[in-house]
Amino acid sequence: MDIETVSSRKNQYILRLRRLAGESSFRRETGEFVCDGMKLLREAVEKGAEIRSVLWKERAGTVEGLNCPRQYLAPAELFDYASPMKNSPGPVFTVAMERDRGDGSLRNAIVLETIQDPGNVGTILRTAKAMDIDGVILTGDCADIYGPKAVRSSMGAIFRQRVMYAQREELRQLADRNGLKLYAAALSDRAEDIRRLDVKEAMVCVGSEGQGLSRELIELCDGELIIPMAPGSESLNAAVAAAVIMWEMTR
Amino acid sequence: MDIETVSSRKNQYILRLRRLAGESSFRRETGEFVCDGMKLLREAVEKGAEIRSVLWKERAGTVEGLNCPRQYLAPAELFDYASPMKNSPGPVFTVAMERDRGDGSLRNAIVLETIQDPGNVGTILRTAKAMDIDGVILTGDCADIYGPKAVRSSMGAIFRQRVMYAQREELRQLADRNGLKLYAAALSDRAEDIRRLDVKEAMVCVGSEGQGLSRELIELCDGELIIPMAPGSESLNAAVAAAVIMWEMTR
Repeated sequence: MDIETVSSRKNQYILRLRRLAGESSFRRETGEFVCDGMKLLREAVEKGAEIRSVLWKERAGTVEGLNCPRQYLAPAELFDYASPMKNSPGPVFTVAMERDRGDGSLRNAIVLETIQDPGNVGTILRTAKAMDIDGVILTGDCADIYGPKAVRSSMGAIFRQRVMYAQREELRQLADRNGLKLYAAALSDRAEDIRRLDVKEAMVCVGSEGQGLSRELIELCDGELIIPMAPGSESLNAAVAAAVIMWEMTR
Repeated sequence: MDIETVSSRKNQYILRLRRLAGESSFRRETGEFVCDGMKLLREAVEKGAEIRSVLWKERAGTVEGLNCPRQYLAPAELFDYASPMKNSPGPVFTVAMERDRGDGSLRNAIVLETIQDPGNVGTILRTAKAMDIDGVILTGDCADIYGPKAVRSSMGAIFRQRVMYAQREELRQLADRNGLKLYAAALSDRAEDIRRLDVKEAMVCVGSEGQGLSRELIELCDGELIIPMAPGSESLNAAVAAAVIMWEMTR
């Protein structure tokens, strides 16, 4: 295997890595995203993800089973320039996105509407995988799950968790087609205590901490549910709320 | 009320704010910490916290019930220099820490050992408050809950949640004195499924994602518990794990 040494900030590959890390539109266009670190590389290989390129820091390494013809080597300073992570020991590598069109059947799902914090979105992916939730469905204006922060927070779940995109109106059809209830997590008086509902075969929608779910989405749902809280507490962190909901869905 | 206008980066109060935001040792020494924003100021007043000083940005404001003789006003650029938050609309204010020595009785508690991410520690405080957990106990080398990031993540719970510090060895006594079980959240084969344990009257210890709990702490415990996870998932984010545990403690 030839490993090409790169030495300039103007190198096309270095420029491409930086764009992939920084621009979600470029990620969408190319269908490719950037990951960081040996642990994640091992998980990507294990999962059979399509690894398109690898940039090593200072010296080339390897991972069992890695089969990627485009490998590069950069001195530390140039590597740090290209990497989205500070002080990364490397490598960084790029992976082809897998798109799930939602055609297959769905056991259950958590739906995120306009959750904009990439750390929360990545953490929810990680939790969904650990709690054996079948699908994570993004709607509205969520943080890009392929951005470096979300990928990092997902701790490898990015390669293993089924993720779908849907327009708001499609959610109702998706639920019906799969025989699932569609619930809205909301802080309203109408909302039922989640412990009193059967959420085993359901899609549950979670909104952002500040805004909650859109009224349009709530109206599409079969009902509203709430995680009861102590008086004086107004809300939970979005990743925490989603975790408790997913826990109840599979408990 | 006189409000003093400050105009220099060398002003003693500005320097003090920056030290309080940046140095945990200075916070400990002075028993004071920095908070940001109108929402938090309102909560601090409501809770009867001892507000020691307020710095307003560009123009002085007020909050009903605020009774703080030391109030300052700074132009935007100087305010931004003094504030630990980027692009804060202000104000920033300082509050006296309240120390709970753990003498009172304890219904239940979550124990954090060496959780170093301030966002996770703040989020756990917020979740504990919402889930009506009596105490959050810090042991080992946790992130400072009075640092700006933890305070922000706590979303006001910093004023309302009972927080204690304990040496590892004191945890056993604290549990015994309050008639509580002491459990270790661990990923070992010995650990019992949390759904099969009665964790209502308990102190449950959670460690960092990478390291887990120290062996010494596990040995002090009555038993180990685990949040069951899907195959291939190694761990949960610490704030997520703590949330599921606290949910089960009060479910």
